[in-house]
Amino acid sequence: MKAWRSYIIASRRLLEALESDLEGHDLSMADYEVMAQLSEAPGRRMRMSELAELSMISKSRLSHRMKVMERAGWIRREECSEDRRGFWAVMTEKGWRAIVAAAPDHVESVRKRFIDQLSTKEQENLTATFSHLTEELRSQFKDEGN
Amino acid sequence: MKAWRSYIIASRRLLEALESDLEGHDLSMADYEVMAQLSEAPGRRMRMSELAELSMISKSRLSHRMKVMERAGWIRREECSEDRRGFWAVMTEKGWRAIVAAAPDHVESVRKRFIDQLSTKEQENLTATFSHLTEELRSQFKDEGN
Repeated sequence: MKAWRSYIIASRRLLEALESDLEGHDLSMADYEVMAQLSEAPGRRMRMSELAELSMISKSRLSHRMKVMERAGWIRREECSEDRRGFWAVMTEKGWRAIVAAAPDHVESVRKRFIDQLSTKEQENLTATFSHLTEELRSQFKDEGN
Repeated sequence: MKAWRSYIIASRRLLEALESDLEGHDLSMADYEVMAQLSEAPGRRMRMSELAELSMISKSRLSHRMKVMERAGWIRREECSEDRRGFWAVMTEKGWRAIVAAAPDHVESVRKRFIDQLSTKEQENLTATFSHLTEELRSQFKDEGN
């Protein structure tokens, strides 16, 4: 459990520190991640179901965040013409500006608190470990009915 | 940023999955961690300031959680006789029973979702990386006035 203890204490603190580094901006960390995924998609649009799967967020949780972001004017939801039950999440210009405004501070804070603290070897090891951990968690996530 | 991306997606999902694994119990993940720290202290008691520092939780946040846990009857707060401004957090019998009841399920879920997914080498690397990351974050935490 030693790996676990040091990992969990550092991770929780890291998330909180990054959250407070974003305080001058309108975005929370959770919203930032969703917006970052969306900003990299073609046409800055993605099916809600795909976005939920990629981010490993439950559909109900994502749907809740999306309503908040829609009210803020950062995204709009569009019905899928091919699939009546589905929706697209589409990033608006205002949403794009919000993430572009937050990005430099956020990247700086990820550097200072995480990346700059790791050697090149540690970065490589972490990338490998968390890539396969992500795959495993993704498959558990699906098996659990998400 | 590759190390960062895979780390952040896996970490957030892991915390959420562990949270939902605890659902049958009265404890949230955040409370579990604080209670686990307290359960290992001599006499199951610790100064609030020390507990905040060890867990890297801001004093105001810890104080809020402690009020909730006090209402649940899991801890009680006692004034320090040596230091009038300070308080002890003392785990009650009821608190001890709550963590003892949750522990087997929680440990099982940490194993299934994290430890069993890592090779021995990965566990060693993670322990080393997150130990020094924790030290760095702890020093940033203090420098930022916590």
